Amino acid sequence: MHTPQLEDLIVLLARLPGLGSRSARRVALHLLKHKDHLMRPLAEALVETAENIKTCSTCGNLSLQDPCELCCDHRRDLESLCVVEQVADLWAVERSRTFRGRYHVLGGTLSALDGVGPDQLSIAKLLRRVQEEKITEVILATNATLEGQTTAHYLTEKMRGFPVKITRLAHGVPLGGELDYLDEGTLTAAFSARRAF
Amino acid sequence: MHTPQLEDLIVLLARLPGLGSRSARRVALHLLKHKDHLMRPLAEALVETAENIKTCSTCGNLSLQDPCELCCDHRRDLESLCVVEQVADLWAVERSRTFRGRYHVLGGTLSALDGVGPDQLSIAKLLRRVQEEKITEVILATNATLEGQTTAHYLTEKMRGFPVKITRLAHGVPLGGELDYLDEGTLTAAFSARRAF
Repeated sequence: MHTPQLEDLIVLLARLPGLGSRSARRVALHLLKHKDHLMRPLAEALVETAENIKTCSTCGNLSLQDPCELCCDHRRDLESLCVVEQVADLWAVERSRTFRGRYHVLGGTLSALDGVGPDQLSIAKLLRRVQEEKITEVILATNATLEGQTTAHYLTEKMRGFPVKITRLAHGVPLGGELDYLDEGTLTAAFSARRAF
Repeated sequence: MHTPQLEDLIVLLARLPGLGSRSARRVALHLLKHKDHLMRPLAEALVETAENIKTCSTCGNLSLQDPCELCCDHRRDLESLCVVEQVADLWAVERSRTFRGRYHVLGGTLSALDGVGPDQLSIAKLLRRVQEEKITEVILATNATLEGQTTAHYLTEKMRGFPVKITRLAHGVPLGGELDYLDEGTLTAAFSARRAF
């Protein structure tokens, strides 16, 4: 019923995270309604970005240059390294403007179920960086999920004996969080890590 | 922090229906991870579709040709016309394979709140088609919303005196629907339109 070209577009859109076939149809129609202001600029931005954005060979960040601007910025604290699962996590930490060191993107978490072992992640490179770059603190900022914590434990084991301080993010009540809506695990963590007022 | 090109892409993605800034970031990262299998093909499909898909000047459907293949298909019932709000609705009816006549896409609904009057919709053209094309039945398949029903009433008024039968879709319990989860309006409609078993 649809034309083949439109079908192709919808199939591709449906492969984006968070879109199903129904929302892909809706997006395709929206794009066709706004050809000049959205559809063509989006196509150009996709081409531009695909051509120019590279993965930083040092930290795994995405950037126009390799090494990326974060790795090249010598005003940053060169001794502390924040280990994250994905580039999105790196962006989240940067948005918080709380960390001024450098990053290392693992590219995922260890997962026996999905067949992700240490070799599929950027772990060997991390260990090399920690030894070669005179890092004094490694902050394991993996997600507070089972896989994230398993990966953090594995990394701690691997770095045992390295002359670095290994830390992880604090668990607790998020700002603005209401106790009534928090899961028990978070509440337990917040209680056991309570501090003098 | 991100590179400007990536920012531009994220801003454009965030303007798609159903995507916010967070999911746009996620989509952008997913695209960069799958440059060759998703990002470049998507860019090409967008360009292809933007260049080639037109709006049918007769019914308002989207198609490679004008008039569209539905309007040109003379095996279809030329005497019945199904009036829908949007192209997506036309597609939905086509998917059901239940209607073999032709369509007319209004392009929206009357809405005083959004400043959409009869002139913003394809209503004059509809009235002309009904008179000129020897239509015998007009099925008003607007949505079962306040705006959709208002628009249907308006169209009925406008076609008063035309020698056509004007019908609307039945309201009732959807197939697979559980009474417990239905709104009162639908239940009321289903009761008042009940039929002998």
